[in-house]
Amino acid sequence: MSLSMYQASVPVFIRMLGNLRRLLEKGAAYADIRKFDATALPDSRLFADMFPLSRQVQIATDNAKGCAARLAGIEPPKFEDSERTIPELIDRLDKTLAFLQTLQPSQIDGSEERPITLQLRSGTLNFNGQSYLLHFALPNFYFHVTTAYNLLRHNGVEIGKPDFLGRD
Amino acid sequence: MSLSMYQASVPVFIRMLGNLRRLLEKGAAYADIRKFDATALPDSRLFADMFPLSRQVQIATDNAKGCAARLAGIEPPKFEDSERTIPELIDRLDKTLAFLQTLQPSQIDGSEERPITLQLRSGTLNFNGQSYLLHFALPNFYFHVTTAYNLLRHNGVEIGKPDFLGRD
Repeated sequence: MSLSMYQASVPVFIRMLGNLRRLLEKGAAYADIRKFDATALPDSRLFADMFPLSRQVQIATDNAKGCAARLAGIEPPKFEDSERTIPELIDRLDKTLAFLQTLQPSQIDGSEERPITLQLRSGTLNFNGQSYLLHFALPNFYFHVTTAYNLLRHNGVEIGKPDFLGRD
Repeated sequence: MSLSMYQASVPVFIRMLGNLRRLLEKGAAYADIRKFDATALPDSRLFADMFPLSRQVQIATDNAKGCAARLAGIEPPKFEDSERTIPELIDRLDKTLAFLQTLQPSQIDGSEERPITLQLRSGTLNFNGQSYLLHFALPNFYFHVTTAYNLLRHNGVEIGKPDFLGRD
């Protein structure tokens, strides 16, 4: 077995978004015990001009479905960014996981040299598939999943590294 | 060009540790302007029982050199975990980068099926090289680099996503 573009992307996204789902469930249980408002955790930030938890989860799902779809050369599903509560964020994770699970290795394997163009507010970025996956999509994805973890942890939710990694 | 175990590990670590080095330099410049004690940022935490910034940087370097060395089947350099200031943490990053730069693709490519055994406090973990890299080493590494970023950001250092990703 040789490392492939599919193995380095879709199963990683599926595993980490499943972990994020369980982290959010623990956040919801904690918010319930502590009687937080339904939007208190989703609205929380690590600094005033950072994105709140809700946006971190939205971007993590956008990173995952956008990366997988670009590597496969298809259009990703679009979501509205209207989630305000943890159950709504979990629903977005589930929709993203359902999309990722439709992708076959044959759609993504061999995409190392596929030209990938991103239009960002700051300008246009050009990559090949491998450099896009390794040096843009994965670091971005992990950034937002980790920041979601850090926001829950910063607010006292009892989670640990095994929850983040998805180990028993 | 086909995705390889070397490409998915060593250049990723080198790039992200270089980014972390620049994040810490911005932290040091900010601490200087704000007249922070030399250990105030390195000692800072997002929650009382989370590791401080100094430990996040130590673990990120351990993740990178440990992963690369395990995939290559060699012993990684050992560091003492005695860093207390940002210049000391930057020195540790430089030592780790120097080690990573000695590794050749031929030492790591083909390690997909190499048995990897980790002895953790919680028990023994067994992986093959590919699953160790994709589902343990990389998420761990990104976790600690992102948490270091979040700690600097939480303390007011003016850094942004382009600094984390290392884009111009």
